[in-house]
Amino acid sequence: MRPKIYLFGDSITEESFDDGGWGASLAHIFSRTVDVVLRGYSGYNTRWALKVVERVFDPPVERGGDGGAQPLAVTVFFGANDACLPDRCSAWQHVPLPEYKQNLHAIFSFFKARWPNTIILFITPPPIDEAARLRYPYVENLLGLSERTNEAAGAYAKACIAVAEECRCPVVDIWTKMQQNSNWKNAYLRDGLHLSRSGNKFVFEEVVVKLKEQGLSVEKLPVDLPLIADIDPKDPLKSFQK
Amino acid sequence: MRPKIYLFGDSITEESFDDGGWGASLAHIFSRTVDVVLRGYSGYNTRWALKVVERVFDPPVERGGDGGAQPLAVTVFFGANDACLPDRCSAWQHVPLPEYKQNLHAIFSFFKARWPNTIILFITPPPIDEAARLRYPYVENLLGLSERTNEAAGAYAKACIAVAEECRCPVVDIWTKMQQNSNWKNAYLRDGLHLSRSGNKFVFEEVVVKLKEQGLSVEKLPVDLPLIADIDPKDPLKSFQK
Repeated sequence: MRPKIYLFGDSITEESFDDGGWGASLAHIFSRTVDVVLRGYSGYNTRWALKVVERVFDPPVERGGDGGAQPLAVTVFFGANDACLPDRCSAWQHVPLPEYKQNLHAIFSFFKARWPNTIILFITPPPIDEAARLRYPYVENLLGLSERTNEAAGAYAKACIAVAEECRCPVVDIWTKMQQNSNWKNAYLRDGLHLSRSGNKFVFEEVVVKLKEQGLSVEKLPVDLPLIADIDPKDPLKSFQK
Repeated sequence: MRPKIYLFGDSITEESFDDGGWGASLAHIFSRTVDVVLRGYSGYNTRWALKVVERVFDPPVERGGDGGAQPLAVTVFFGANDACLPDRCSAWQHVPLPEYKQNLHAIFSFFKARWPNTIILFITPPPIDEAARLRYPYVENLLGLSERTNEAAGAYAKACIAVAEECRCPVVDIWTKMQQNSNWKNAYLRDGLHLSRSGNKFVFEEVVVKLKEQGLSVEKLPVDLPLIADIDPKDPLKSFQK
């Protein structure tokens, strides 16, 4: 049975199999080696994620088979909702920064206890284009002020990095890396928060690099059944003997 | 645990999570309800598929959990390689038409015995643009003749439909349906065989329609955890009580 990579996060994960999405791109490059399993929950913050993580990831089955097998990796991609400002129109999704850190620690501990050898890869929230957030409101915005700011997102991104360092696990800092492109607002975001096609490609490539640094890449994984290039045209069925 | 839809087929399935692919599009619309699991094997014909089907789909686990749960559906999408002509450059992938039918029957029987209530959805091979096949050779082609013809693909498509009727299971006839568009060669194919972006959209939409006819659609499936729209902003945690 194939190993798995889980993608756990909010809407930026849930929509990652849409056209050009970073999750679909991962599933594509691992098409013969890994099942990439989507566990994205639009709108969720770390407080809610922590409440449901045990239900999302069922306990391992005590048996010889693969039901209890550890996944190769799990991406943990929360913070964009936690970082909603507490005095603006999406305040109910806000989680205070100290609690965000605690929640990320608790999510990390949950995975580490269940799967000691699984790569746990944090991804920071993306930067925010506040003007675009006003142009694309998700809810009624009577204040006329962006419900998220880039400064707040940056504070949560830094907190995410700090937790990753404390847990000694890898992190993709898209908040910082995206802003290294001066055109980041138009290039990587489509509504000031969610990823454009280029933004999806950016996250995909960063995740691939980080997984590779951790020793996880398609070249090193066993291929599910013989590749066409490895089948002998003169005696194809030889390849399928058990 | 979420139910599954398996995609079992050749390269047109294996590459279905590439940019705009029909598999990724399925995974996207079912993002909170179903795990769409990729089991595509580039170059494979039904003879090889039948040899490996037991290994691809492990026996159900005898336990109370979900390991033995029946998937909601499995797509069976073979024939493009069986239909390689026996006297041309990809002859080693050819499977005679009577054996193709037998193999499809056997694959159907395998799934039906294992999962009596699972929707088994056949997909015919696509039409072939022979001129494009000469422009995009996969192997050395000394004869200068296309290794596949549209006529042969059509015979295999008709055989696939006949098997589906005999098995009383649904079938997507992309060979016929694509050719109803006079521009099918340029619109739906990128190398005379594999699907273009529009071809992927076409297959995706046909599969969605057929699954819906069988009673399987996203609207009818339980959603994994509360949707953001169903969470009470005044008391979000209420939604996460078990």
